[in-house]
Amino acid sequence: MMNRIEDEDDHVPKDHPRYQSLKYRHKIIEGMKNLIVAEAGLIAHGRGECFDYILGEQSNDIARNAMKAAVALMLISEKPVISVNGNTAVLVPEELVELSNELSAPLEINLFYRKEGRVEAITSVLKKAGAKQILGTDESKMVEIQELSSNRRIVDPEGIKIADVVFVPLEDGDRTEALKKLGRKVIAVDLNPISRTAIWADITIVDNIIRVLPEMIKIAKKLKGMNKTELKKIVDEFNNQKNIKDTLDLIKHYIETQKEVAFNILNK
Amino acid sequence: MMNRIEDEDDHVPKDHPRYQSLKYRHKIIEGMKNLIVAEAGLIAHGRGECFDYILGEQSNDIARNAMKAAVALMLISEKPVISVNGNTAVLVPEELVELSNELSAPLEINLFYRKEGRVEAITSVLKKAGAKQILGTDESKMVEIQELSSNRRIVDPEGIKIADVVFVPLEDGDRTEALKKLGRKVIAVDLNPISRTAIWADITIVDNIIRVLPEMIKIAKKLKGMNKTELKKIVDEFNNQKNIKDTLDLIKHYIETQKEVAFNILNK
Repeated sequence: MMNRIEDEDDHVPKDHPRYQSLKYRHKIIEGMKNLIVAEAGLIAHGRGECFDYILGEQSNDIARNAMKAAVALMLISEKPVISVNGNTAVLVPEELVELSNELSAPLEINLFYRKEGRVEAITSVLKKAGAKQILGTDESKMVEIQELSSNRRIVDPEGIKIADVVFVPLEDGDRTEALKKLGRKVIAVDLNPISRTAIWADITIVDNIIRVLPEMIKIAKKLKGMNKTELKKIVDEFNNQKNIKDTLDLIKHYIETQKEVAFNILNK
Repeated sequence: MMNRIEDEDDHVPKDHPRYQSLKYRHKIIEGMKNLIVAEAGLIAHGRGECFDYILGEQSNDIARNAMKAAVALMLISEKPVISVNGNTAVLVPEELVELSNELSAPLEINLFYRKEGRVEAITSVLKKAGAKQILGTDESKMVEIQELSSNRRIVDPEGIKIADVVFVPLEDGDRTEALKKLGRKVIAVDLNPISRTAIWADITIVDNIIRVLPEMIKIAKKLKGMNKTELKKIVDEFNNQKNIKDTLDLIKHYIETQKEVAFNILNK
């Protein structure tokens, strides 16, 4: 009578209402088995699922506004870098490579949970997705940023060490704070609108990374035609605190609607 | 320069603001390594962390009201059963045993993610915590409930199969619905107030299992002195839909306060 259904997410029908969510959950679990994702990365993914849930699991104009400012900021910056961890590598590898190309912003592997073989596993995922150059892979060259005590302090001398803008999808609060104190501009993707990362970042995109990267690629293709003055105007007009407060209002509104909607399933 | 910090939760100082949360996160990860917890259980734990976060990570009177009704219902029921999965077994093993004793409600291991050796691993955890009798462990005796297609359908003929009330902490929606359709009363502990489990259950405790079980043990010691009429009154006066709606209001209120509070860290 025993049967294993650990891998049942493989067989979730495409019309299942939670198909997308289950598909990415499966990718994260497989990522852990393949050493790419840390155990704590599974828990972090769950936290993200919940916050996405109370955003209605869809992108909104407030998030898109932040994405536009993020792309503009990266386009006018001198040395933008895209920081990659295990979760982003399994969730959106091709999109990371495409965004990196569109914005001429190199990918740098930067991990909180280091483990023998993890950098190599992530490198392999990114190369398979088409990445030509990946920073953060040559241990002999790495340097430290003193403001940070976690493994995140170990950075590439050609990447985060000298970057003016760091794009940090799925980030921990300590590093965002450290990068800010080092004078970097930080762009974060964080489904928790009141995490330390969300609060500290210059531009916080409160949305699911799997929807954010494709959208940012589209925006990058559009904004690349603009001149620096126009791009700078987009950045200057963006107000992160207002954006986060608007997101909190959106969540409140969603929860209010659920007071009526949630019980409809009982009458089906 | 490589150093492993996967196990750093072990060394989190007790005055760390997130000490409790990190301690239980560590237990869940260890539980997975010891086969007790499913991979998907880590993701589920993360979802719980997030919902707990927007409840301010503390119990409230609305949840305590549901706990009181839950204890009362179990005390007046003929055959109450406490369903145990991997996450509950690693998070609150001693408390499960104590509540089981207080309420004369047997523990039954019932899993969504079955895997060779998992029932045995959970049995061992519960026995170490003092459990004398554990249902759901003898494969040769198990029967199925037809309303359910997942592994959750495999139940003990002396437990969930004949129970009138099933206490299901950390539950999946399908089973709650199936148990309801079979005429069982269901008591759920679910940090997501609008999950299918939360909506379908007769009594939904929207709170963290690590706070709920100790509180329910206390309540059980108190209510055991009451007669059936008094207990039935507590149950009858409880309104689950109202309770859930009040919880949603509480979350809205918490989010509203965060619009001001969250940015205070920038001024520190």
